Amino acid sequence: MAREITLSVDAMGGDSAPAIVMDGISEAHVRYPGVRYLVHGRSEAIQPFLDGNPALKDCCEVRHSDDVITGEQKVSQAIRQGRKSSMWNAIDAVKTGDADGVVSAGNTGALMAMAKLSMRTLPGIDRPAICSLFPNEVGETTMLDLGANAQCDVRNLVEFAVMGASFIRAISGIEMPRVGLLNIGSEDLKGTPLLRDAAAILRDADLAMDFVGFIEGDDITLGTVDVVVTDGFTGNVALKTAEGTAKLYTQFLRSAFKSSWMAKLGYLLIKPVLGKVMTRLDPRRYNGALFVGLNGVAVKSHGGTDALGFANAIGVAVDMVKRDLNSGIGEQLTHLNFDAVESIQAAKTA
Amino acid sequence: MAREITLSVDAMGGDSAPAIVMDGISEAHVRYPGVRYLVHGRSEAIQPFLDGNPALKDCCEVRHSDDVITGEQKVSQAIRQGRKSSMWNAIDAVKTGDADGVVSAGNTGALMAMAKLSMRTLPGIDRPAICSLFPNEVGETTMLDLGANAQCDVRNLVEFAVMGASFIRAISGIEMPRVGLLNIGSEDLKGTPLLRDAAAILRDADLAMDFVGFIEGDDITLGTVDVVVTDGFTGNVALKTAEGTAKLYTQFLRSAFKSSWMAKLGYLLIKPVLGKVMTRLDPRRYNGALFVGLNGVAVKSHGGTDALGFANAIGVAVDMVKRDLNSGIGEQLTHLNFDAVESIQAAKTA
Repeated sequence: MAREITLSVDAMGGDSAPAIVMDGISEAHVRYPGVRYLVHGRSEAIQPFLDGNPALKDCCEVRHSDDVITGEQKVSQAIRQGRKSSMWNAIDAVKTGDADGVVSAGNTGALMAMAKLSMRTLPGIDRPAICSLFPNEVGETTMLDLGANAQCDVRNLVEFAVMGASFIRAISGIEMPRVGLLNIGSEDLKGTPLLRDAAAILRDADLAMDFVGFIEGDDITLGTVDVVVTDGFTGNVALKTAEGTAKLYTQFLRSAFKSSWMAKLGYLLIKPVLGKVMTRLDPRRYNGALFVGLNGVAVKSHGGTDALGFANAIGVAVDMVKRDLNSGIGEQLTHLNFDAVESIQAAKTA
Repeated sequence: MAREITLSVDAMGGDSAPAIVMDGISEAHVRYPGVRYLVHGRSEAIQPFLDGNPALKDCCEVRHSDDVITGEQKVSQAIRQGRKSSMWNAIDAVKTGDADGVVSAGNTGALMAMAKLSMRTLPGIDRPAICSLFPNEVGETTMLDLGANAQCDVRNLVEFAVMGASFIRAISGIEMPRVGLLNIGSEDLKGTPLLRDAAAILRDADLAMDFVGFIEGDDITLGTVDVVVTDGFTGNVALKTAEGTAKLYTQFLRSAFKSSWMAKLGYLLIKPVLGKVMTRLDPRRYNGALFVGLNGVAVKSHGGTDALGFANAIGVAVDMVKRDLNSGIGEQLTHLNFDAVESIQAAKTA
């Protein structure tokens, strides 16, 4: 590693905090030995994990916070009352330069709001988005927004496309990522006026992407595109529907494998290869959603993940600190012409 | 069967029409021997299928139509120019009383628009919806709208809930179906104002359903509710994402089973039980989306299905003709109070 990386971690976020967080750091420490951690939270809850684990003690620095943001807390309340929380302090360590990025498994809405307040959005970006990778037939697809913005306008969708393409360039080196707008049909006339306007802008602009137009829900797993662009409502529903479907399939398989002695025997023989399939589809493997559009690296872990999943979220942060995620986004934004669409909209309402 | 059922079929709709349609009727004839079919389309294309199949000839009556609505045709154009099409004639046979219901694998938008024009919507229903069954962990879930209405208002969502509950009552006899509104979180404050207003009306009204509030994407397959209510955009994306995920899983399994001699042997042993899993998840099994909210039975088959899938769509129509799908919908609508929400909305904009 060229230089030492320091990550700021909110130890109090998630369903089984701080246990899974500390075990996650432990796992991540094996994978990324050079990374150091600022661990924010109640020191009396965190310290026991370090006392029993010299390796962990060595890479972690505990920073005490009195308060904890709960999963049920309203965003507005978290913002007003949460300035002494582990979440706020973890984020603020990035702003002060003490850390290179932050990871939390806590309240998504509060984390996004605080990250926006503290790190600020990139120049020219209206709203940050949540972005993650999905398995597809040939590799991985990224989708955004996964839930930060339930309602989006044309500008948001277009900016998501630019940020998603930049993310793919940073992690995979693809110069012209294929970008698609999620819709309910691939024909130009399908969907809402909002989507048609966003498509018009992306089609006309000279951007570092291969804009393929409208795609449908099954394209997410087909690998038709590298970047799936959608509003946070649709993206969140699609993400959870996909997770639910995979879970249902696994459950059906499990009970089938137990249903006869022949199936039980067969299961023993396919177990090794089945394990590989499960790994490829394991939601923990894709844990660690990146907040794009901020002046810094912020990664959200699933609240219900385990240590392995949390370690993967740390891995996303390490990856993003090493690569230049935001490079070129500002330049790309100068190629966009929203005036054209505002006139379309004005003409429609006139 | 209490009385003879006659179904009207558009033989020209779908990717491999009329072949899969005729083979589908052939398959359905074995399952539902008492059903008769009015087969609409180009008689020169249909007749050869009857000539080679006496059983089919016996249950089918060919009704010639000159025109065909293509999958690419715009809805507005189909409506204006399609009055001599097999699709229009198939639908019209229900209106004239010649048939009890209609089945088509053609252009969804055109089919819905023509069905609305010819059959009319039920009194008090603003917009019909597309509704279908999904497998879940314990049985089946229905979801609507699956794509008829990309944009919905409060009234639409509430009416979808009433129609979905009525559908479940008709097919399963559950008196108080559990109904959930698809959202990006289950807390009362999540999502859009539209969803919160729809939830307020459903919570306050005295309806024949157990309204559970907001649900998330993974609840579709968990079986948390009997009816998932959402707008046509989100429903369509969720449906296709689920189909895509199941397909990806199957593909990963297939290549895993071929990857070693041990896996190949194991596959032979689990093949019988795996077949049952595949059947449970087979999209053809769930083929046949019902248009709810119309004065009559109209079923849309997937355009890319095969004969087995088309026969299942016919099965949905047979089922719906036998049961009283629309019973009680009018009475339920009288329990809804939209004024309350209109005042909420007025207060917001004031």
